[in-house]
Amino acid sequence: MKTGILGGGQLGLMLALAGFPLGLQFVFLDPKRDAPAGRVAPLITGDFDDPACLDELASRVDCVTFDFENVPVAAVRRLAEKRPVWPPVAALETAQDRLLEKTLFTRLGVPVAPNVAVDSRDELIHAVAKTGLPAVLKTRRMGYDGKGQYVLRTQADVEPAWQALGGVALLLEGFVDFAYEVSLIAVRGRDGHTAFYPLTQNTHRDGILRLSRAPLHEPALQQAAEAHAGRVLSELDYVGVLAIEFFVVADQLVANEMAPRVHNSGHWTIEAARTSQFQNHLRAVVGLPLGATEAVGEVAMLNCIGSEPDPAAVAAVPGASLHLYGKQPRPGRKVGHVTAWADSAEGLSQQLARLQPLVDPQADGS
Amino acid sequence: MKTGILGGGQLGLMLALAGFPLGLQFVFLDPKRDAPAGRVAPLITGDFDDPACLDELASRVDCVTFDFENVPVAAVRRLAEKRPVWPPVAALETAQDRLLEKTLFTRLGVPVAPNVAVDSRDELIHAVAKTGLPAVLKTRRMGYDGKGQYVLRTQADVEPAWQALGGVALLLEGFVDFAYEVSLIAVRGRDGHTAFYPLTQNTHRDGILRLSRAPLHEPALQQAAEAHAGRVLSELDYVGVLAIEFFVVADQLVANEMAPRVHNSGHWTIEAARTSQFQNHLRAVVGLPLGATEAVGEVAMLNCIGSEPDPAAVAAVPGASLHLYGKQPRPGRKVGHVTAWADSAEGLSQQLARLQPLVDPQADGS
Repeated sequence: MKTGILGGGQLGLMLALAGFPLGLQFVFLDPKRDAPAGRVAPLITGDFDDPACLDELASRVDCVTFDFENVPVAAVRRLAEKRPVWPPVAALETAQDRLLEKTLFTRLGVPVAPNVAVDSRDELIHAVAKTGLPAVLKTRRMGYDGKGQYVLRTQADVEPAWQALGGVALLLEGFVDFAYEVSLIAVRGRDGHTAFYPLTQNTHRDGILRLSRAPLHEPALQQAAEAHAGRVLSELDYVGVLAIEFFVVADQLVANEMAPRVHNSGHWTIEAARTSQFQNHLRAVVGLPLGATEAVGEVAMLNCIGSEPDPAAVAAVPGASLHLYGKQPRPGRKVGHVTAWADSAEGLSQQLARLQPLVDPQADGS
Repeated sequence: MKTGILGGGQLGLMLALAGFPLGLQFVFLDPKRDAPAGRVAPLITGDFDDPACLDELASRVDCVTFDFENVPVAAVRRLAEKRPVWPPVAALETAQDRLLEKTLFTRLGVPVAPNVAVDSRDELIHAVAKTGLPAVLKTRRMGYDGKGQYVLRTQADVEPAWQALGGVALLLEGFVDFAYEVSLIAVRGRDGHTAFYPLTQNTHRDGILRLSRAPLHEPALQQAAEAHAGRVLSELDYVGVLAIEFFVVADQLVANEMAPRVHNSGHWTIEAARTSQFQNHLRAVVGLPLGATEAVGEVAMLNCIGSEPDPAAVAAVPGASLHLYGKQPRPGRKVGHVTAWADSAEGLSQQLARLQPLVDPQADGS
């Protein structure tokens, strides 16, 4: 079975590494000649909206998936005429637009922050009146890693926010005063079976995920998150991994956003789940039964942002696993991650105390 | 860092899959155009003793290792003139010759079965008198998976054994009436540090490994095995993974043979050890600190011999991981393996009860 993957970044690379043992083969399409997945599988270099590249990809594979959510919907539609594409186009469209996403969540009874569509300065002023301040103005489309967002704290921020983001479709969201952030990695097979990983607690800085820790050990939140995700999966007739990020506010979940793909906060599943998110995504896409999603022990993942840590220093920490993506380091870029994995929360904390100075020296030790 | 690997079979494939996350790259040399590792890394197709191929390999990599023990020593010597080669040539030479191997073990105080070199019919007759019957006549070189062996039960077997194997250097070994077989996967870094995985219990049929189960939970045997292996590693100034197979006889270990490479009985470490044997071999070869070798939970590995199991049936067993090597199935050929991994021995047995009929229908359920 050959699977085409739109996008050959680190997620594509890790999909391939998880798929080879199943006997799967891969062909990638990515605009970048040095895309990480090209180190391990054939790579078609070209734009996602280049019909010739899309047709070549379709001709070389049995089914198609994608490794990020900003691939053009038209490209996926074109592919879907020739080969099965999972997750479904509707999920991709929804995830690409914060308004559609919030609307879907609300329709399915998944709590979200108050939000108002904004297409003009006047609408922004009215929206602020509705949500109150503070609030966050976000582009409806193409946002990731905190890009395309502006926090409004006082009325004086309204005009600068409009200056910064105005001109494209926007959404104003009421500020959520959350205790912490979590994510749920969910997966649904072609046969409709679903599985859910334990909730992961995530720490961001400058809009970029720095630290994920699992499992959360909050059964009520786990149950609520699974119920929410189950409705989304079912509504979208979803196939593959879906990640949903939630704020935790007074022991309740408020959905922030979803990603119709494998997710950074699920990288820990490579070491510490019975089946990794990458393999489960592929099992879903190619029509195999899903694997067990339980966590084994206590685990944390640290992103390597902007530079690679010293491999020898990381390797010297017992229980640590280094993952480098083969990307040219530059500020703000995810170039790798390190997984710490232990029997106990104490053991994990000891590992993290050694790893954080190596991987993320600016972390506050949280 | 680029590593050259002599041999691109499933062991080479799994080395590459374990090395990519460390940012390592690989070039393989293998006589077979369809060698499994060629699916994920550049493959030079040519004989191991072809000087042009060896020189090309050396020119493209920083260091060299091998994925099986029957590569010609002369080839490794040629490579070693240009690039560091690990494990060391001396270990390869010793492992290629049962007499050298047994002599080394004996010199280091590692118990072995009584054994006598045999180069003629007369020597065979004298050897039988020394070891007694039953005994096993083995070729000194190029044996694997039970090939090149003949069991002598009575004097009447002497002549047929000689007819079957005579003409090459042989070794007669006294029969070891063992309770069961185990193996130790040991690893030594460039810095001389050593690490040992928990002992694995192995079940063979027709000379081929069928089932490995770990950890053994016999601390005295573990301690003895580590002491034996530690002396061998040190004596050979070894770098990389070394596997030693032992018979267990009346709670004592009797060394059978060693393999200077990653080993079939260590495949379970991919899922159920903090660091897999594959990654630890590479860490050693490229000079990184070794990773933790402890087992996580209870684990078993079933070899897929001669045919691939139905992937959907295997995937439907929770906790099971399928590894297919992309090899053309034929009788007696290892084409994949399945790992079963659980919290408890009971959970593991339940998984095995479901997996054995799928993977190895002839197994007796042991």
